[in-house]
Amino acid sequence: MMKTKRKMSEKIGLSPGTLVHVGQRKEETTRVRIIDYDQDSIREEDVTRIEDCFLFKDKPSVTWINIDGLHDIDLIGKIGTYFDVHPLILEDIVHTGTRPKIEAFDTHIFIVFKMLSFDKDKDEIVNEQLSIILGSNFVISFQERQGTVFNPLRERIRNAKNRIRKKHSDYLTYAIIDTVVDNYFAILDNMEEKLEQLDEMLFTSMSKDTFHSINKLKRKLIALRRAVSPLRELITAVQDKDFELVEETNLIFFKDIHDHVIQILESIDTYRELVSGLHDIFLTNVNTRMNEIMKTLTITATIFIPLTFIAGIYGMNFKYMPELEWRWGYFGLWGVIVGLVGIMFYFFKKKDWL
Amino acid sequence: MMKTKRKMSEKIGLSPGTLVHVGQRKEETTRVRIIDYDQDSIREEDVTRIEDCFLFKDKPSVTWINIDGLHDIDLIGKIGTYFDVHPLILEDIVHTGTRPKIEAFDTHIFIVFKMLSFDKDKDEIVNEQLSIILGSNFVISFQERQGTVFNPLRERIRNAKNRIRKKHSDYLTYAIIDTVVDNYFAILDNMEEKLEQLDEMLFTSMSKDTFHSINKLKRKLIALRRAVSPLRELITAVQDKDFELVEETNLIFFKDIHDHVIQILESIDTYRELVSGLHDIFLTNVNTRMNEIMKTLTITATIFIPLTFIAGIYGMNFKYMPELEWRWGYFGLWGVIVGLVGIMFYFFKKKDWL
Amino acid sequence: MMKTKRKMSEKIGLSPGTLVHVGQRKEETTRVRIIDYDQDSIREEDVTRIEDCFLFKDKPSVTWINIDGLHDIDLIGKIGTYFDVHPLILEDIVHTGTRPKIEAFDTHIFIVFKMLSFDKDKDEIVNEQLSIILGSNFVISFQERQGTVFNPLRERIRNAKNRIRKKHSDYLTYAIIDTVVDNYFAILDNMEEKLEQLDEMLFTSMSKDTFHSINKLKRKLIALRRAVSPLRELITAVQDKDFELVEETNLIFFKDIHDHVIQILESIDTYRELVSGLHDIFLTNVNTRMNEIMKTLTITATIFIPLTFIAGIYGMNFKYMPELEWRWGYFGLWGVIVGLVGIMFYFFKKKDWL
Amino acid sequence: MMKTKRKMSEKIGLSPGTLVHVGQRKEETTRVRIIDYDQDSIREEDVTRIEDCFLFKDKPSVTWINIDGLHDIDLIGKIGTYFDVHPLILEDIVHTGTRPKIEAFDTHIFIVFKMLSFDKDKDEIVNEQLSIILGSNFVISFQERQGTVFNPLRERIRNAKNRIRKKHSDYLTYAIIDTVVDNYFAILDNMEEKLEQLDEMLFTSMSKDTFHSINKLKRKLIALRRAVSPLRELITAVQDKDFELVEETNLIFFKDIHDHVIQILESIDTYRELVSGLHDIFLTNVNTRMNEIMKTLTITATIFIPLTFIAGIYGMNFKYMPELEWRWGYFGLWGVIVGLVGIMFYFFKKKDWL
Amino acid sequence: MMKTKRKMSEKIGLSPGTLVHVGQRKEETTRVRIIDYDQDSIREEDVTRIEDCFLFKDKPSVTWINIDGLHDIDLIGKIGTYFDVHPLILEDIVHTGTRPKIEAFDTHIFIVFKMLSFDKDKDEIVNEQLSIILGSNFVISFQERQGTVFNPLRERIRNAKNRIRKKHSDYLTYAIIDTVVDNYFAILDNMEEKLEQLDEMLFTSMSKDTFHSINKLKRKLIALRRAVSPLRELITAVQDKDFELVEETNLIFFKDIHDHVIQILESIDTYRELVSGLHDIFLTNVNTRMNEIMKTLTITATIFIPLTFIAGIYGMNFKYMPELEWRWGYFGLWGVIVGLVGIMFYFFKKKDWL
Repeated sequence: MMKTKRKMSEKIGLSPGTLVHVGQRKEETTRVRIIDYDQDSIREEDVTRIEDCFLFKDKPSVTWINIDGLHDIDLIGKIGTYFDVHPLILEDIVHTGTRPKIEAFDTHIFIVFKMLSFDKDKDEIVNEQLSIILGSNFVISFQERQGTVFNPLRERIRNAKNRIRKKHSDYLTYAIIDTVVDNYFAILDNMEEKLEQLDEMLFTSMSKDTFHSINKLKRKLIALRRAVSPLRELITAVQDKDFELVEETNLIFFKDIHDHVIQILESIDTYRELVSGLHDIFLTNVNTRMNEIMKTLTITATIFIPLTFIAGIYGMNFKYMPELEWRWGYFGLWGVIVGLVGIMFYFFKKKDWL
Repeated sequence: MMKTKRKMSEKIGLSPGTLVHVGQRKEETTRVRIIDYDQDSIREEDVTRIEDCFLFKDKPSVTWINIDGLHDIDLIGKIGTYFDVHPLILEDIVHTGTRPKIEAFDTHIFIVFKMLSFDKDKDEIVNEQLSIILGSNFVISFQERQGTVFNPLRERIRNAKNRIRKKHSDYLTYAIIDTVVDNYFAILDNMEEKLEQLDEMLFTSMSKDTFHSINKLKRKLIALRRAVSPLRELITAVQDKDFELVEETNLIFFKDIHDHVIQILESIDTYRELVSGLHDIFLTNVNTRMNEIMKTLTITATIFIPLTFIAGIYGMNFKYMPELEWRWGYFGLWGVIVGLVGIMFYFFKKKDWL
Repeated sequence: MMKTKRKMSEKIGLSPGTLVHVGQRKEETTRVRIIDYDQDSIREEDVTRIEDCFLFKDKPSVTWINIDGLHDIDLIGKIGTYFDVHPLILEDIVHTGTRPKIEAFDTHIFIVFKMLSFDKDKDEIVNEQLSIILGSNFVISFQERQGTVFNPLRERIRNAKNRIRKKHSDYLTYAIIDTVVDNYFAILDNMEEKLEQLDEMLFTSMSKDTFHSINKLKRKLIALRRAVSPLRELITAVQDKDFELVEETNLIFFKDIHDHVIQILESIDTYRELVSGLHDIFLTNVNTRMNEIMKTLTITATIFIPLTFIAGIYGMNFKYMPELEWRWGYFGLWGVIVGLVGIMFYFFKKKDWL
Repeated sequence: MMKTKRKMSEKIGLSPGTLVHVGQRKEETTRVRIIDYDQDSIREEDVTRIEDCFLFKDKPSVTWINIDGLHDIDLIGKIGTYFDVHPLILEDIVHTGTRPKIEAFDTHIFIVFKMLSFDKDKDEIVNEQLSIILGSNFVISFQERQGTVFNPLRERIRNAKNRIRKKHSDYLTYAIIDTVVDNYFAILDNMEEKLEQLDEMLFTSMSKDTFHSINKLKRKLIALRRAVSPLRELITAVQDKDFELVEETNLIFFKDIHDHVIQILESIDTYRELVSGLHDIFLTNVNTRMNEIMKTLTITATIFIPLTFIAGIYGMNFKYMPELEWRWGYFGLWGVIVGLVGIMFYFFKKKDWL
Repeated sequence: MMKTKRKMSEKIGLSPGTLVHVGQRKEETTRVRIIDYDQDSIREEDVTRIEDCFLFKDKPSVTWINIDGLHDIDLIGKIGTYFDVHPLILEDIVHTGTRPKIEAFDTHIFIVFKMLSFDKDKDEIVNEQLSIILGSNFVISFQERQGTVFNPLRERIRNAKNRIRKKHSDYLTYAIIDTVVDNYFAILDNMEEKLEQLDEMLFTSMSKDTFHSINKLKRKLIALRRAVSPLRELITAVQDKDFELVEETNLIFFKDIHDHVIQILESIDTYRELVSGLHDIFLTNVNTRMNEIMKTLTITATIFIPLTFIAGIYGMNFKYMPELEWRWGYFGLWGVIVGLVGIMFYFFKKKDWL
């Protein structure tokens, strides 16, 4: 997300609605995949000329046009013209820093939000933008790159008995969003594991690494919250605004997503509280250690500094020091020393420092 | 709750409404208990074939079907089909990580929330999901495991004179929720005891254990809040949405639960503030102790280091050191030492360090 | 409040509406006092049989029935039956942990809230529950124990010229609540005094006691807020809900209470911010003292440790150490020592440590 | 404000509407000043008998009656009777701890809020209560003491060409409030100066004084917020409630005040954040200094303690210590010492402690 | 902004609507630039007499009058009279401390908000006020100084094919606001860079500078939030209030700005959380360093203080000390010393201090 914003300021001065791909180019070529289905038949196709998919527009069957890669401004412009999409919306599609939102038009609804996945190698949350245009008998989805996330969904579509084959484009849209939201839980799981690891680490080690892990987790939670949070409004809008394109009987499915989003947000909040608890524990551990170090120093110094003074006294070269002449002076001194150490140990014991 | 979410991500890709039991399997076998009652008669039964309980559906008397154990997908599927429950709701019932909520349908209302109990051995709050389907003349409740929580309620039903025998299924639902909410108070009591113990501990000991107890309590409060908080919306929905299945004269009972839930939430907030106050006290105690340690070190060092220097001076081997020859040099030095110590004691006294 | 909740969990399993006195028994016997008045006449009476006060119900004059002591379940049950009070309300009356609230019924309005007083001996806020049933020509008030709080109000009723004699039961209710709210200000005054004392203490002493006083005040403010805060909703309900039993011309009086409650809550919030400021000052003082201790140690050690080293050098027994033979070696060394001390003083001065 | 509340509790038990002046008596005598004007004529007068100003009530011209001093209960009672002001409102006027508010009656609107000024000598915000009664052709204002705040406003009224002469009593009310709000900016300016001073102080000195100045500023901001914040609701009420006494064309003027109040509140919030930033800087400075002190101690001790040990070794009196006999033993030892110091310096340099 | 407020208090006592330029005079002369365009023609002009631009008022083409410099009170007064602008609005235009807002009148809409730019030299956000008066066929914009911000917009207007040429004055207003909002992103970019720099700095250095940079960034974020935040309400008002002057088909453009503003605010919030995370890291680093220093001191002192004591013992001059006579006494002592050091190293190792 950070990366794309930097480019955002480069757009200053351009006319609104000018199509400029803002974001990292994650695919070499743009891939257009089509699935066209109704209850009885299904047809899958990879098209090379975008015009090929326009034929499906007037067929009553549901057509899912999936576009991987956002850099082909030309292709997206053509789709915009053919399906009558507002220029500002096209701008949102190719600008990967768009805030999740829903917008309704006469013939279609536009939905944009974030797909999240966890990159185990970099230990980072990867953020991809997914835009959906929902028409009466088609769904166009725009992804930044090819992925395997929707494969199980495609499999379900291929299965003629699945509920999805009896439903319309609004249910397909639901199914897409649902798949993405289900993936959020995988991120949560990863975070929870991290939390538990950190919890254990705090009992064994106490290095700077632990602290940096806590901070990293905190940042991930901030990023996650920011990506998921607008989704709540988005789904609420679907439920409240009574869109013509969404059948009332399907609203319960969107309600289900809504519940999941709320649950994810509540989990994030809980995790944030737990992480901030870990932070407190870390600081207290650091403090406790400091105490222990100080105690060691104090005990050593408090015992030996007075003793050294006593030894120093009898190392003086005064001519007349009667003790030096005593027969048992040296051994008596050892007695005094042992006595002093005993008293100090007793004092430290009482203070609960040992 | 933590455990169940891990499995949630395993559901990715499944068709919505697919019944998969998510959560720990807490019972070996599923137990189905039925109480059927009206003002005059009562009948209790344990059924083995779930079909046996379908007979009660059309009887005018109130039937309470209680199912302990959620792993028997088949059985729950049958209930769903017979009582016409939406597949997504069935999914919620068997998924123990569902967020507390209420949902109204034409013929029934679905309620799901958390039963909490305190496991003294593990010093943990145990979280069990309770789902209720409220129909015009039946209540189906789903628990994760058998428990004794509803025994007093059953006892009241058996008593022909109890108000519950004159009321319908909505009152039974109220009574179930009320029982669960009453149990929350037991958790609160336990936390209050802990709070008082910690308060005392902070005055006597100051070990890491105290700190970890504070943190544990903090986490329990976070968990408790998360479980109870959605219940407020749930009950508010009962009061506001004017469900046909809930008689208006019974609304005052739900209002009573509402007051209790608010009171619990306010108590949790108060406890959280108190716990965070304990945390502050702990940190200040640690700080105060550090001060005390430092003071001991400083006093010892400030007194003896200069004295050792003086002793060192007269331990030097210079050929010409007049003091060494003096008759009372040694005793005079002791006088100087005693004087210095006196001055320093006066200084420490003035600084309020002794 | 803490004490009563412990008993709350003991009620688990009882039928709702079962009358159980929850809370401390603060009175030996229950006292029932009646004042019956209209513009022209007044009659005061202590009744022993509760039935005696039922006669007043149908008289057009205003009757104030005041009951001190909540443990006589029987008596309260009779009042409930005679005045047609809902069992759940009776339960609220005898349960001293009820959350402040207002509830309207056909023939009466139920109000419950907290009377606070300050126990100077225990340095604690004492919390007593006051329940009021407002009927068209009667007011029944339930207190936990006899007190002198309402004596001035009774005095005003006895004075035939007072506005209260021309008004109805709603104005009497207002007058009761107003008296209680006025008493909250006494608590605030006490807290303000405490605040000022603490403010001064922080400048003179810095003991653990100060810190515990700060914490105690913080807790009192939490408790006070919790008791007063629900009163705002309560009074707002009186103003907004257009109760038949409250004359519109009297709404301005309730508005006046509302303003007072808001003012009290704002004061509490201000005090909380001030207390947390005191906390900060305390911590900074502790820190500053630590600094001072460390500075003393560092100055002593930094001056004398090098000097001791020098003295140690010339205490060595090497056969060939030319300095030892010098005529002015010893006095020269003193010169070096004085010079070093001077340099170090200059250094400390520059560092602003002296 | 603090002072008045103490007296508030003394009012406990009095009948509501009883006039008791609560607050400091800031004026010896009460002064009543009248300005009566319309577009063509103006008349200014100081009256001694309050009855003299009643004549103006029925004149169509705008009459501004300004009363300085609130202790003359009698006078204020008479005004109340003559202008038909509710007893509770009169109570609010003479009680200087009233929360800012607006209240509408049939024939007049009552407004009460705080005039603030900065007392440079005591370095305190001075809080004075201003009450306004706005009638159709008169404005009565009550101040705690005589002041010069409204002199420019009077000057404008005397100028026949000024807009105020063409407007009614509602515009006069606006002009009074506007003058008071303009004075809030002077307080803000003072605080901003303080903020800048503190910002500089934190770079040069680091005494306890700085810390106490930060705390004082924090408290002033709390007090300021408390006085200004209710004004927002007050002005919003003027705009929303469609009072008959306020002409619609004048609403834009009240909107202007509203904008100013919002701006002041936003400034206060910004300042609070800045002050809390200063607090953080102070604490970090204290910490940094501690570090520096510790570093000095550690460097001195780490260098000289081992050296002293070495010197101690060769100060021992063992009979057979070969090094003591060496010709260059003493000088070789100096070499070792210099070498050790060099190593330690290198170590400290590497640690970035020098 | 700070600077202008100081002058705000100087306005106390002036009649509302008096035109006084409050703020820094940033231009020597006032420049008036006019662009008049419709779909077919365009005319650009710099006028010297403000009256010259009044001719455009009645032409159906869109006229954009841009005024750079706010100190020419006379000129602005004339515009106010001619275009019928309320005196309070004129006051807002010349007062550079006005809070961002929108106000609708019969013939025009007034919008005022902040243009922000980043001054790289001073490392500060520069705040300029932009006021817009939107009429049916004209837009008057007031800037504090000449700038290049709107050059790309002018270029687009000159291009006959651009959408802006087909649209009315409301679209021009949108385009102006959009340009300003796009510039906010440049500020965000700069802050993000700073954040990343700081993040790296925290790993390498740990000086006071880092801390002051963190604080500076915090302050900038506070300032930025304060400037941008009111814009949200402003744009929401355009969308909700159904202004006649704004065509419905253009609302989507304002919605687009709204999304951007929300996104900026969310970014600011995220950055604030990140900055406060950096603050935590800084404090922990300082703490960790303190620990390291203390550890070094403790290890040195704990090892050498006891050894020095031992050396001191054998430096004593007692007549009868048998060890001194031993043949291998000296070497045996070295053995003891090495042994002690070994034990202590083992102890420190175990404590994980090395």
